[in-house]
Amino acid sequence: MDPSQIELALARIRTALEAGEVQAAIDSLTDLHPVDRADAFSDLDQKDQAALLPRLDLKATADLLEQLEDEQAAAVAETFDSEQLADVLDEMEPDEAADVLGDLPAKRAEEALAEMEEAGNVLPLLHFADKTAGGLMTTSFIAVPKGTTALEAIEVLRRVEPSPGTPYYLYVEDEAARLVGILGLRELVIATPDTRIETIMEPEVIFAHTEEDQEQVALRMARYDLAAVPVIDDRGVVVGVITHDDVMDVVEEEATEDIYRLANVPDPYLSIYSPIRLAIRKRIPWLYLSAATALFAAWVISNFEVLIAEVAFLAVFLSVVAGLGGNTATQSLAMIVRALALGEIDRRHAWRTVLKEGVTGLVAGVLVGTVVGLSVWLWKGNPVLGLVLGVALVGNMLVAGFVGALVPLSLRALGLDPALASSVLVTTVTDSVGFALFLTLSALALSYLR
Amino acid sequence: MDPSQIELALARIRTALEAGEVQAAIDSLTDLHPVDRADAFSDLDQKDQAALLPRLDLKATADLLEQLEDEQAAAVAETFDSEQLADVLDEMEPDEAADVLGDLPAKRAEEALAEMEEAGNVLPLLHFADKTAGGLMTTSFIAVPKGTTALEAIEVLRRVEPSPGTPYYLYVEDEAARLVGILGLRELVIATPDTRIETIMEPEVIFAHTEEDQEQVALRMARYDLAAVPVIDDRGVVVGVITHDDVMDVVEEEATEDIYRLANVPDPYLSIYSPIRLAIRKRIPWLYLSAATALFAAWVISNFEVLIAEVAFLAVFLSVVAGLGGNTATQSLAMIVRALALGEIDRRHAWRTVLKEGVTGLVAGVLVGTVVGLSVWLWKGNPVLGLVLGVALVGNMLVAGFVGALVPLSLRALGLDPALASSVLVTTVTDSVGFALFLTLSALALSYLR
Repeated sequence: MDPSQIELALARIRTALEAGEVQAAIDSLTDLHPVDRADAFSDLDQKDQAALLPRLDLKATADLLEQLEDEQAAAVAETFDSEQLADVLDEMEPDEAADVLGDLPAKRAEEALAEMEEAGNVLPLLHFADKTAGGLMTTSFIAVPKGTTALEAIEVLRRVEPSPGTPYYLYVEDEAARLVGILGLRELVIATPDTRIETIMEPEVIFAHTEEDQEQVALRMARYDLAAVPVIDDRGVVVGVITHDDVMDVVEEEATEDIYRLANVPDPYLSIYSPIRLAIRKRIPWLYLSAATALFAAWVISNFEVLIAEVAFLAVFLSVVAGLGGNTATQSLAMIVRALALGEIDRRHAWRTVLKEGVTGLVAGVLVGTVVGLSVWLWKGNPVLGLVLGVALVGNMLVAGFVGALVPLSLRALGLDPALASSVLVTTVTDSVGFALFLTLSALALSYLR
Repeated sequence: MDPSQIELALARIRTALEAGEVQAAIDSLTDLHPVDRADAFSDLDQKDQAALLPRLDLKATADLLEQLEDEQAAAVAETFDSEQLADVLDEMEPDEAADVLGDLPAKRAEEALAEMEEAGNVLPLLHFADKTAGGLMTTSFIAVPKGTTALEAIEVLRRVEPSPGTPYYLYVEDEAARLVGILGLRELVIATPDTRIETIMEPEVIFAHTEEDQEQVALRMARYDLAAVPVIDDRGVVVGVITHDDVMDVVEEEATEDIYRLANVPDPYLSIYSPIRLAIRKRIPWLYLSAATALFAAWVISNFEVLIAEVAFLAVFLSVVAGLGGNTATQSLAMIVRALALGEIDRRHAWRTVLKEGVTGLVAGVLVGTVVGLSVWLWKGNPVLGLVLGVALVGNMLVAGFVGALVPLSLRALGLDPALASSVLVTTVTDSVGFALFLTLSALALSYLR
């Protein structure tokens, strides 16, 4: 629960292992919550991990594989023979078992599946694409025919001993196994034993489809405050369920992705703990792209070299115009990207939004342009310089608001991620327009600036 | 569920109201899911809202107030007299009722509370600060003494008829009402009737404290995949509960806050639907701050005006150095801010992280500096210009990686939000250092640049 507890356990485990007391080390490890246990296990060196792994019981090994990061889980799974691995996978939540199998070499995965008793729960999950409802769901759920009584439903629950990952709902099916209702355990527990569940179930069920984008499902669950959502196939049959914890992971992942992409970090799985080599390999293409656009903006300025040679102080203010344009655009961009992520913009509002951000940029430009223009007049003692700078700021901030909204909305309309490359595109525009505007105005007013 | 359904209902409601068929309008509205109903209601004009409101039954009115945005809920609540309002508040989830009361004028809130039957559930919630566990929790939960049998617990559930917001857990108390365990309804429903619940409860409970920051609670619930977490007071007594849907809201809010703050939008409640006046009032202070820092960076350049007058093409490349520094720093900044938000950095790793980002900036600087330097040599035919630009890029990107990590970590160490003002601080440094570095190097190499 708190980091120091994990540190303490780690110290005990290491001491015990050094003294050759493997069982004491195992006890210290398994005393932790499974989530913390995986953290502690990851922090051990390979030798210590190898000493502990064979001595963990089936349940603890399954917990560990469920909680470790995907790559590490696969590495641990590789150390088992097919039979051991099959036993561990049988003990795991089906969706977690499917994830491990997906990360193993195909041959090893097949061998393990062949030995598994519960392969039937895991196999269907292997066919769905990542980032779809099918790829996110698990098959631990309980479905009952609508004619069932409350007592019979409770008997079903007793018999199947649902795993802790199973949601607190029963899904009610018709004769063709199609989903027709949902019943919370709360309603079940307070019902009289002979109540037919179709009389107490909720017939309006909010569900997801296997092929649906996980982000859409996450938005729906957040909107309707659902703890779990059933996933149906083309026939209308429940084939899985997505629970609040999976959706929380999706929401956090998507937020990370947006924050990263707005900052030109393309890979949401990159973290500050990634090796430097990997960090650079992922980040450098976007820096090269930025360099290319910066050189384009530089080329815009280079067309005015003669002017700058004559009035060198113009060079001082170029970055002010570009920078404030960039800032204005970034504000709009962030608000639009976030609104799109939360499903708050529909097509009808898109144009109104672009217009509104343009107006906001314009008004902000007038306010900021006035103050900056006056300041520069005072500083450099040249009212025309102040005026030129002020007008350039108004123009560039108008463009900035407009482009900051237009770019992400256009990317979305093209079916692309609105956050991807938005920043680069937008700042290229605000830089180039800012430079060109300020220098063109300066050229026109040259006789007053000299 | 899908936006067109809400549109359809809205059309039906408006037609019915025009024809004076208020009941038909009410029916169309209440056919919708309560969440969609609130959306539809918000889209109606005031006249239509006023026509519908008095005809909604108590339950529908309570649902509506729960789902409307805070401000609008308060506006609707203001239209009722104290007695009506008290009835509606009694019907609402206690935490939602507390939110409405908090948004009403103090006098109106007191009058309504005085009339409420369930004021006892709501009153304790009014004392907790926003953004704490106490401020987020609701008082709908069920606690039972540890000596209770399964059958008695089910009787309790029958008697209290828990509202839909009540979590699917029972909290188990000792003689002093202190939390000693937790029991899922699943375990309850499959237990034999005379089982004492202390024998089937889970004694290791993950909980929150009333005064704790809601962000910490959200991280804990996400970490341990909890659907609900009990909130205890100083005595160890459960006084409320936080459920997965509240935490989902917190996670989304915090992500919005980080995305906004990195983009210098200070208010996470600002949206693209806020009035332009409000948007400008909130966004303009940060644009003025950016203007001030941009003018500072401009002052740095102004110290080199003589140099630029002599070698005007230097002005062309100033923004390349500053821009790439800014981009590198933004990448580091985004990754650190996100890692801090997800609780992934502790104090021990802070210095290592700063060092690592510095090294990443340095290596990226060498890679980008080489390519840009060579390109500019080719473009301008001056190898020394290429060299000066390349070296300035290496230096500025090293500083950028370092500062991009140092600023958010320092803000956090000072107890401030690591995302707040980070961008402004960081780009001020990368702009100023970039300008100064490039122009100083140019001055040193002047004889080769002329």
